[in-house]
Amino acid sequence: MTTIRAELGQVLDGVAEIHLPNWDGIRQQVGFIHGGVVGMIADSAAGYAALTKAPEGAEVLTIEYKINMLAPATGDKLIARGSVIRAGRTIIVTKSEVFAVTNGAEKLCAQMQQTIMVTNG
Amino acid sequence: MTTIRAELGQVLDGVAEIHLPNWDGIRQQVGFIHGGVVGMIADSAAGYAALTKAPEGAEVLTIEYKINMLAPATGDKLIARGSVIRAGRTIIVTKSEVFAVTNGAEKLCAQMQQTIMVTNG
Amino acid sequence: MTTIRAELGQVLDGVAEIHLPNWDGIRQQVGFIHGGVVGMIADSAAGYAALTKAPEGAEVLTIEYKINMLAPATGDKLIARGSVIRAGRTIIVTKSEVFAVTNGAEKLCAQMQQTIMVTNG
Amino acid sequence: MTTIRAELGQVLDGVAEIHLPNWDGIRQQVGFIHGGVVGMIADSAAGYAALTKAPEGAEVLTIEYKINMLAPATGDKLIARGSVIRAGRTIIVTKSEVFAVTNGAEKLCAQMQQTIMVTNG
Repeated sequence: MTTIRAELGQVLDGVAEIHLPNWDGIRQQVGFIHGGVVGMIADSAAGYAALTKAPEGAEVLTIEYKINMLAPATGDKLIARGSVIRAGRTIIVTKSEVFAVTNGAEKLCAQMQQTIMVTNG
Repeated sequence: MTTIRAELGQVLDGVAEIHLPNWDGIRQQVGFIHGGVVGMIADSAAGYAALTKAPEGAEVLTIEYKINMLAPATGDKLIARGSVIRAGRTIIVTKSEVFAVTNGAEKLCAQMQQTIMVTNG
Repeated sequence: MTTIRAELGQVLDGVAEIHLPNWDGIRQQVGFIHGGVVGMIADSAAGYAALTKAPEGAEVLTIEYKINMLAPATGDKLIARGSVIRAGRTIIVTKSEVFAVTNGAEKLCAQMQQTIMVTNG
Repeated sequence: MTTIRAELGQVLDGVAEIHLPNWDGIRQQVGFIHGGVVGMIADSAAGYAALTKAPEGAEVLTIEYKINMLAPATGDKLIARGSVIRAGRTIIVTKSEVFAVTNGAEKLCAQMQQTIMVTNG
């Protein structure tokens, strides 16, 4: 996450945010932020959200995710907001929404649904 | 892709490869390559595979993908192999397999299924 | 849908419901409603939601969907609630939530994310 | 599965088939077999394939799946072929391909990627 300059934002019970400034190292040919980077911060935000529902000392692993790219990832920065849909003992299902922020206005640019496994760490 | 040091490998009709050396900037805390990076090269390999089936001058956009993480992404390098499942005029469905390569031995570490849209460029 | 006794419920701008009574022809060995049936009503509800955002006379086709099974589908009936996440000219992205209803109390039992293509009909 | 007249076909180590004749109770308005039914047999075939990799007496649960609809589900019958991509102790990842069969000729009409959990039954 350091490589792409992403930072963990607010973390509350069942939710977590990742913030990512727009810089040239994460943009693809046509000037948008690379879809893989969008997937990366969506995955991380949802993983941190899941971690808030896991037992003390446990770890969380991404089993799988599915992401729809909805609009170009552009603007001043991206914010990925992860949240828990359902937390079981072994499996936590989450979602993550990624917003492109331009002059403070947010536009939804990706939507993810993810499955997390809780491990003993 | 330059930021993560990924390189386009062999591209044939309906298939494409991305190669990624394992280096510290793409590893997460526990020493494996970050899942987001795995997703990024899987997405790119399948996108390049789709591009071989698109008309001259057209471009391809990732609508969505789903990826299962199967094993830790570790070893000397990763190879993502994308291939086309079905190419329609507007929609191309692809898959991508990511292998962790250690001393030349390959182990499947992620499997993706993806939907691509062909645009006029 | 008639075969499984599902019925279209409320349809508003960007949202649609499917109702399905619990009966023995849709239950699997262990007594829960079959996951395939849950997928079917989730798919249909989101498709009807998408149709409210398509131009007059157009049709909608499911390109793909991803569904997480969250809890056993049991109780008196199921309600699938589809809604539109983003409506483009060609592609509409939706979600669908399926609730198991027992004595009027609802419990989320499945969550779907879906991609729809608008066609000229 | 009896309600839709599906039958379990060949089952080998890591693979399983479901066969479904085309009949009017499973067709939607425009004459194709309903996508939900396609999802149902794809899910079942992959689940049976996973079961061949689970310990004696264990059961398998679908955590989630993602399916792309590739071509109209039409013809004399459908065959869903499930197979195991990777079998872990708790999680089994599978895929399923659904073929539309007309006069013995097969055409791929849907592709699924699925996550299964092994339970103690």
